[in-house]
Amino acid sequence: MNLNVVAYVIGWVLQLEAAFMMIPAFVGLYYKEFSVCKVYVCIVTLCLFLGTLVKIGRKGKGELYVREGFASVALSWIVMSMFGALPFVFTKEITSYVNALFETVSGFTTTGISILDEVETLSKASLFWRSFTHWIGGMGVFMLILALLPMLGANSINLMRAESAGPSVDRILPKIRDTAIMIYSLYIGLTVLGTIALLISGMNLFESSTMIFGTVGTGGFSIFNDSAASLTPAQQWIIAIFMTLGAVNYTTYYLLLMGHVKKAFAIEEVRLYFIFIIVSVVLISINITHLYCSMSEVLRHAYFQVSSVITTAGFASTDFNIWPTFSKTVLLVIMLIGGCSGSTAGGFKVSRLIILMKAIKRELQKVIHPNMKKIIYMDNHVLSDETLRSANVFAAVYFLVLLISTVLISIDNFDLMTNFSAVATSVNGVGVAFEKVGFGCNFDIYSSFSKFVLMFDMIAGRLEFFPLLVLFVPSCWKKF
Amino acid sequence: MNLNVVAYVIGWVLQLEAAFMMIPAFVGLYYKEFSVCKVYVCIVTLCLFLGTLVKIGRKGKGELYVREGFASVALSWIVMSMFGALPFVFTKEITSYVNALFETVSGFTTTGISILDEVETLSKASLFWRSFTHWIGGMGVFMLILALLPMLGANSINLMRAESAGPSVDRILPKIRDTAIMIYSLYIGLTVLGTIALLISGMNLFESSTMIFGTVGTGGFSIFNDSAASLTPAQQWIIAIFMTLGAVNYTTYYLLLMGHVKKAFAIEEVRLYFIFIIVSVVLISINITHLYCSMSEVLRHAYFQVSSVITTAGFASTDFNIWPTFSKTVLLVIMLIGGCSGSTAGGFKVSRLIILMKAIKRELQKVIHPNMKKIIYMDNHVLSDETLRSANVFAAVYFLVLLISTVLISIDNFDLMTNFSAVATSVNGVGVAFEKVGFGCNFDIYSSFSKFVLMFDMIAGRLEFFPLLVLFVPSCWKKF
Repeated sequence: MNLNVVAYVIGWVLQLEAAFMMIPAFVGLYYKEFSVCKVYVCIVTLCLFLGTLVKIGRKGKGELYVREGFASVALSWIVMSMFGALPFVFTKEITSYVNALFETVSGFTTTGISILDEVETLSKASLFWRSFTHWIGGMGVFMLILALLPMLGANSINLMRAESAGPSVDRILPKIRDTAIMIYSLYIGLTVLGTIALLISGMNLFESSTMIFGTVGTGGFSIFNDSAASLTPAQQWIIAIFMTLGAVNYTTYYLLLMGHVKKAFAIEEVRLYFIFIIVSVVLISINITHLYCSMSEVLRHAYFQVSSVITTAGFASTDFNIWPTFSKTVLLVIMLIGGCSGSTAGGFKVSRLIILMKAIKRELQKVIHPNMKKIIYMDNHVLSDETLRSANVFAAVYFLVLLISTVLISIDNFDLMTNFSAVATSVNGVGVAFEKVGFGCNFDIYSSFSKFVLMFDMIAGRLEFFPLLVLFVPSCWKKF
Repeated sequence: MNLNVVAYVIGWVLQLEAAFMMIPAFVGLYYKEFSVCKVYVCIVTLCLFLGTLVKIGRKGKGELYVREGFASVALSWIVMSMFGALPFVFTKEITSYVNALFETVSGFTTTGISILDEVETLSKASLFWRSFTHWIGGMGVFMLILALLPMLGANSINLMRAESAGPSVDRILPKIRDTAIMIYSLYIGLTVLGTIALLISGMNLFESSTMIFGTVGTGGFSIFNDSAASLTPAQQWIIAIFMTLGAVNYTTYYLLLMGHVKKAFAIEEVRLYFIFIIVSVVLISINITHLYCSMSEVLRHAYFQVSSVITTAGFASTDFNIWPTFSKTVLLVIMLIGGCSGSTAGGFKVSRLIILMKAIKRELQKVIHPNMKKIIYMDNHVLSDETLRSANVFAAVYFLVLLISTVLISIDNFDLMTNFSAVATSVNGVGVAFEKVGFGCNFDIYSSFSKFVLMFDMIAGRLEFFPLLVLFVPSCWKKF
């Protein structure tokens, strides 16, 4: 591995993080939280200094092969979380560094699980930073870096590949940089639209922007102690809808903007994603009818939770732990599936599910017609063996990580369901879980060891395993 | 599909079942249970008559392609269970036919879950038949048919392929029939050895033979109300060891008998299987030390449960629901993995796990050396893309069936852990589960609908999905 180029990339990320952290500093200034603001400014300076130090003397012009791309993305996410956690510790808002790191990893990975009991006691600056990490991590820092500067040549697709969600990276436009700019513009557009909608609903700018970071970034950190339960019905609808929109494959928006409406709605993944949402809402609505006063309330809570879970955002409009097991099981299943590829959503991804279903179908047809050559199509393209194989291997890693992590954290002796849902919510970046880590509970019940396991799961899940796992292969570190 | 050949095969299976059912009839005669014996004789006659009727006029000489092989195996297992359930109903020992069917499916598939509260009230004949179904289903009826008669030509490998456990069928000997004879001889040998061991330990012939059917067949039906908890320590050790032996790839025994000791222990799957057992026993022993009086008791219960669960037999020597979560999670994980291919065990199979691990390793190495051609070896053979793909597709089906079934039975509103463990135990053919279907509980709590879902899971899991799933593909039924 070319460590020069990796260090250079990490330097860039630290500088970018410094720039991002300026915003909460300004928020602190605006709300007259001067001591908090000072902490942010100090850490901004630190990040800038270290970032520059690391970059000095490294041109970063070495080749950025897949291994360097994967390793620098994984390491950047770790470094970014380590520094992103500092404000919480130095403002003494979270006293333990492990907890602060857990909260920050949960933020950047758009998971949204928390070790905090009461978030409303945080300073405005830290509340903003906490939610803003969702927005930064949602579409990814490298997508932004690629949009801002054409720094690393043609191979920089390897950075995007390591960070983007889904089985294959679609270049919407021929040039990577144009694709990155287009996606980020759409992301910002969606964020602005959502913020405006919440402003109209009666929230102030601080509330609406922070809430929308967790919504469009499909993160799930709320600035309210009870997630989204105390919001007005209108605000819940807005958040539910923007969560749904956040987990749609962004290619759809591009096609819609270009006027290709038919093409946009022909994407198999997006269609199945909406089918999942509709079917789940209908099933759950029937199942929970008796729990609420009116049909509109039933529908709102059903849709809110479905949207929250399939998009892996993880807000909650009500305590769904009291729902019948059928509803909870449906939620758990769509939580495992997750949203579309090419979005901010986590989880297995609808597109991978489609690929696996088609592989199963082909296997069955091979039994019936052994000599038939069968090609798998998706969106009218032939699915390459490469994509098929990588979706399969992804599934294997996914379930192995789920199982091994559940074993590891079971040492804390909470019940199996609590542990499994804690792991599932981390790997998939959801943010809601069941039983002892369900609605209104927090993850501080776990030991530090388990917290590190869950942090690993969050980053591994967000980067879709391989970038992080590659770091554990010794030959990755060899100089070539 | 050539329905002629399928019907012919089913006719054979019915006749074979009639022959098998003669044995409990004799047991009834011996124990002077004349009314019960009469029922068995009537059903034997019925099976013989129907079997012959179906075969009349069909020579069964049509080609037995993969689709016919798969469909006839799946249909045979269903028909076999439907007739196998009749004695329980007509002796009025199980009043509902659905329950009797559930019990029989659980028997043939060597699952070992039960709807009975007290098995000791059953007649000796029915107790024998119930345990004997494990032995029949363990190695499979078609393996026996192939051993007995060279009826369907070279293509009869397709029957074996549909019924045998594991990613690929090893022909131990060049000829299918010789392989089948060899495997059944080993199976009978193991059964006789186990029976003798239990006889020496103080059981009578009835007890030792029935208990060993569930042990070597890795089934788990006991003739005692408390499974194996009231047996002597020596008897528990014997059963634990023979469960372990039952789930070893039978190729090992053949190689040992031929004197190829080194080769026998070089099989990667068998080695990993024993490593799993040793590691699990050590981990669980440390975890449960405080619960028992002596180290020997700790070790016995740990080994018994590990052996019971990884071999998917499902006896219990103690109530492990009271064990710490860590031990229960380890048990759940090895339950999902299951035993070796080419044995009577259920589950995902150790060999498939090895294949997936190697595929993951290759994928990681491809990131590091993108241009390297990497071939996967297993036991010094090149793993074909075919085997790799089918293991991957198997994994996908496996998890889809687990998830969908859990959703379906959640309608009964038991908790998620109960439901998931009920489905996992059915698909893997284990027989022990957690929470409301744990030690000392039975599956009668579920509705008929859920029972049918679990029956589907048991047969699907036993036949490794594809033979049963093929029946649901419409084009399978077309005449070619």
